[in-house]
Amino acid sequence: MTLDVRKRFALGVDYGTGSVRALVVSTDDGEELASHVWAYPTGVGGVVTDPDDPNLARQNPSDYVTGFFESVGNAVRKAKQYKGFETDRVVGIGVDSTGSTPLPVDQQGLPLSFQERFQRDPAAMAWLWKDHTAFAEADEITDAVRRHELPYLDNCGGRYSSEWFWAKLLRCSRAHPSVFHAAYSWVELADFVPAFITGTTDPSTMSRGICAAGHKAMYDERWGGLPSEGFLRSLGDGLAELRGRYAPAASQNDKPVGGLTAEVAERVGLPEGLPVATGAFDAHHGAVGAGCRAGTLVKIIGTSTCDCAVAPSDADVTDVTGLCGIVKGSIVPGMWGIEAGQSAVGDLFRWFVEHFAGGNPEREEDPHETLTAEAEHAPAGTSGLLALDWNNGNRTVLADPLLTGLLLGQTLHTTPAEVYRALIEATAFGARTIIERFESIGVPVNEVVNCGGIAEQNSLLMQIYADVCGRPMKTSASPQTCALGAAVFAAVVGGAHPDVPTAQASMCRVKPRVFEPDPKNQAVYAELFQLYTDLHDAFGGVRETAPLGHVMKRLLEIRRRERGVA
Amino acid sequence: MTLDVRKRFALGVDYGTGSVRALVVSTDDGEELASHVWAYPTGVGGVVTDPDDPNLARQNPSDYVTGFFESVGNAVRKAKQYKGFETDRVVGIGVDSTGSTPLPVDQQGLPLSFQERFQRDPAAMAWLWKDHTAFAEADEITDAVRRHELPYLDNCGGRYSSEWFWAKLLRCSRAHPSVFHAAYSWVELADFVPAFITGTTDPSTMSRGICAAGHKAMYDERWGGLPSEGFLRSLGDGLAELRGRYAPAASQNDKPVGGLTAEVAERVGLPEGLPVATGAFDAHHGAVGAGCRAGTLVKIIGTSTCDCAVAPSDADVTDVTGLCGIVKGSIVPGMWGIEAGQSAVGDLFRWFVEHFAGGNPEREEDPHETLTAEAEHAPAGTSGLLALDWNNGNRTVLADPLLTGLLLGQTLHTTPAEVYRALIEATAFGARTIIERFESIGVPVNEVVNCGGIAEQNSLLMQIYADVCGRPMKTSASPQTCALGAAVFAAVVGGAHPDVPTAQASMCRVKPRVFEPDPKNQAVYAELFQLYTDLHDAFGGVRETAPLGHVMKRLLEIRRRERGVA
Repeated sequence: MTLDVRKRFALGVDYGTGSVRALVVSTDDGEELASHVWAYPTGVGGVVTDPDDPNLARQNPSDYVTGFFESVGNAVRKAKQYKGFETDRVVGIGVDSTGSTPLPVDQQGLPLSFQERFQRDPAAMAWLWKDHTAFAEADEITDAVRRHELPYLDNCGGRYSSEWFWAKLLRCSRAHPSVFHAAYSWVELADFVPAFITGTTDPSTMSRGICAAGHKAMYDERWGGLPSEGFLRSLGDGLAELRGRYAPAASQNDKPVGGLTAEVAERVGLPEGLPVATGAFDAHHGAVGAGCRAGTLVKIIGTSTCDCAVAPSDADVTDVTGLCGIVKGSIVPGMWGIEAGQSAVGDLFRWFVEHFAGGNPEREEDPHETLTAEAEHAPAGTSGLLALDWNNGNRTVLADPLLTGLLLGQTLHTTPAEVYRALIEATAFGARTIIERFESIGVPVNEVVNCGGIAEQNSLLMQIYADVCGRPMKTSASPQTCALGAAVFAAVVGGAHPDVPTAQASMCRVKPRVFEPDPKNQAVYAELFQLYTDLHDAFGGVRETAPLGHVMKRLLEIRRRERGVA
Repeated sequence: MTLDVRKRFALGVDYGTGSVRALVVSTDDGEELASHVWAYPTGVGGVVTDPDDPNLARQNPSDYVTGFFESVGNAVRKAKQYKGFETDRVVGIGVDSTGSTPLPVDQQGLPLSFQERFQRDPAAMAWLWKDHTAFAEADEITDAVRRHELPYLDNCGGRYSSEWFWAKLLRCSRAHPSVFHAAYSWVELADFVPAFITGTTDPSTMSRGICAAGHKAMYDERWGGLPSEGFLRSLGDGLAELRGRYAPAASQNDKPVGGLTAEVAERVGLPEGLPVATGAFDAHHGAVGAGCRAGTLVKIIGTSTCDCAVAPSDADVTDVTGLCGIVKGSIVPGMWGIEAGQSAVGDLFRWFVEHFAGGNPEREEDPHETLTAEAEHAPAGTSGLLALDWNNGNRTVLADPLLTGLLLGQTLHTTPAEVYRALIEATAFGARTIIERFESIGVPVNEVVNCGGIAEQNSLLMQIYADVCGRPMKTSASPQTCALGAAVFAAVVGGAHPDVPTAQASMCRVKPRVFEPDPKNQAVYAELFQLYTDLHDAFGGVRETAPLGHVMKRLLEIRRRERGVA
């Protein structure tokens, strides 16, 4: 193949929950030349778990380092097959990762788990975003902020989460003091990788992205950066010391961290000194890759879902109770970045399929495809089922990890495909709840762009989302929007574009097929959404008491009507 | 083998949901000589269903007739292998069946479905106990009784059920008028079989057992038998006419219907004229076979559960709101017979295993055994799950078929074995609710005897029942208590014993192994039962509004504590 020889390229590297992906993309037109995915070898699907504690989820930091070499090295090798691609036409590298995924590091900023004595200790590994062991500490932090009437939670929905930085550190200090005391500092995975590949790992000066800092570490210039020493000391021994081992100011994502070290450059076949952008969370880069701008909600649908929107810096969107966060510059530099999310989406479907849908590993067919095909024959309302998608807690709008799943309406004839569809619908009802909350706080949603493998591959899910939300559902044209978003920032730090919106205009687009809501289904789902809300508010504690005696009967009525049974 | 030559024998015939069983038993000591089970060939597992209407469940009456010849003929053939057994030592036959299972018959009392034009019409078949198509008609009957302040529901818990006689007839008159008008009368399966084998099928004089009549057809001598003509006419055209095509008085179960006809006797190898007892419902005969007497609750655990107790005829047990029924003589002649039940127990486990537990039909192991073994390693409270066992409605104490299943507390780590156990626990909580209701209306429960295949084979289930109910659980020594109970009545009508208690003393016993409650589990289940009751009352409409925000959190706390996670 031949490419326009004047084209330039950027590299986006995306650290997901189970694997890392590197993408080589043209900064001129978004053409995706090559990508390479490398699955983390440690644990189950890349995650270290504990059979006795479903809350625990850790990752091996050495998988991150090897993963960079493997994914980037192979993506570059693949790109070289294209005429017109030369490594000296690559302008920069951008990195994103899951988060909050902090890892304890030594004085040089290297993971504690690189030391032999900590190698197999889950507490010394990276505390993956979906690790919920710190649920009690999260509540403690929330209580402390509220008790002292401090502003630290204003940016993150009013309630601290067990998924976030300080809760995990506090938990480690309590449950694993030897690890905690051995750690000089803690860094987010999104910051660790750019620092490691540019040789800027000194924890006290290491670039800390505003995205992770602002959303998860309660960093804000308004209160002088991280929470005060006194506040951190009141939480527990050793937290205050960490404040001084953190960059004095967090960086916007379009600022370079440094240049690729000679050693790393050689291993991946790229030029030494290549600019590397400040790291950010995968969802935020995904939002950028999907073309996020004012009025656009981007839903990144993966194991969990992240909902991202931006608003002009002068918009009044400070009351974000129940949303995950609002931080200036966390998505698009210079704009408010607003984040919400659902704690389990792809994870929910996978759990159900693996355990409850006869997923025979020796069968050829993908059970998700089989179930989806069957679920298409069980239209809205015909199953009588209703579910809450809380198997991993509820991130938005309840911000409560201590919630669990619920399935209601089963008869002796209920099939796995019907339950599968009910779980899809549950996530759709959750999505609608989030959209309504965005609009109620003054963030208009004029367009919804979905991305991630599920959005791309499951057109039934997209249609249900359109029907439940009563809005057209668009999908990003790129199958790897997070990596594409990282590449957008690489393009900006590498000088191919002056700013993010300009880069997006050249590099990001949506697919021609739009899922339009079907009025009939929309009406049925409006009824079901009311019942979903009844359950949501009752079990989520939104309402202290609620009548629920009507729920099963109403579902049976709808079922009869939609099945055409007299 | 040699038997005491003076021994006498009785035959019990038990029509279950999927098969019919005949048992040859000694009236002297209850020794079970031989039995034969014959599965109904029509439909799925003997049941005709409709994929578009989960409420529909019918059976082919010709399966009942063939089933008598096959089961009895083969049981007698097997018994003949024993020295000392001679067919002239058989004193009588007793019959029981599922119910309310009415079937439309012609003027000769033969099933309409024997006619070619109705052969394949489900409406002309037997309306199996678990057919719920008549849910609206049941409510209509309840409303009419209440509106006219009539006593007809005093014996059956205050609410008419879609599973019962008149609701099914009314439904047929509305939905299938051609069948309804072609029917001269309707008979319960429990009455049809004794009539058919004794040649006494004339609907107007056919013996109608007090058990079916009193519990399901609102028959009571206090109001002159069946409900009044005027009342039946007010329900719908054609019901009043049926009143005159029904025996003037219902019979107690220890009264003979007649003698075996020559033709039937020859086909099964028994003497012509052998006395046949009045038929009754399987559960009631099962209760007798399990040794039911004052103070004993018998739980017959099958596809559904029936809970039976008796009380002296002078006991004040007339307020049975929420129980299924109270009829004098319906279980043990001369005593109050009191019935309650759970609409799905074995059916619930089977549904789950077949659809959701990877039940691979090619695997050798029984999936129930595998799941039970795994569930033993997930002790009380460790799963965080809680379920409502309402997949087939709730028979007691809510008496509401328009309820559905519920499962709550799922995480992304929840396993099929944990759900399986939660379903067992749900049925145990339902069992405890029933026991508490019995005691609250003045029917003491000093002893619980369980019977049915599940009670016999699943010791985990029995232990959970003991722990949840806080009572020792005994099991009947006979693996076929319904058929044994039918044989008890055969022994009485055949003159081997003067009355039922005397026959029970000789023929019925419990197993030596008793499941004693474990205090630790009992305490955990007491906590879970409170949460179960919160859900039960909220979704069952017992309380108009209820707080439920604590349920998931409390389950998570219990889970952490029982797993020993800090």
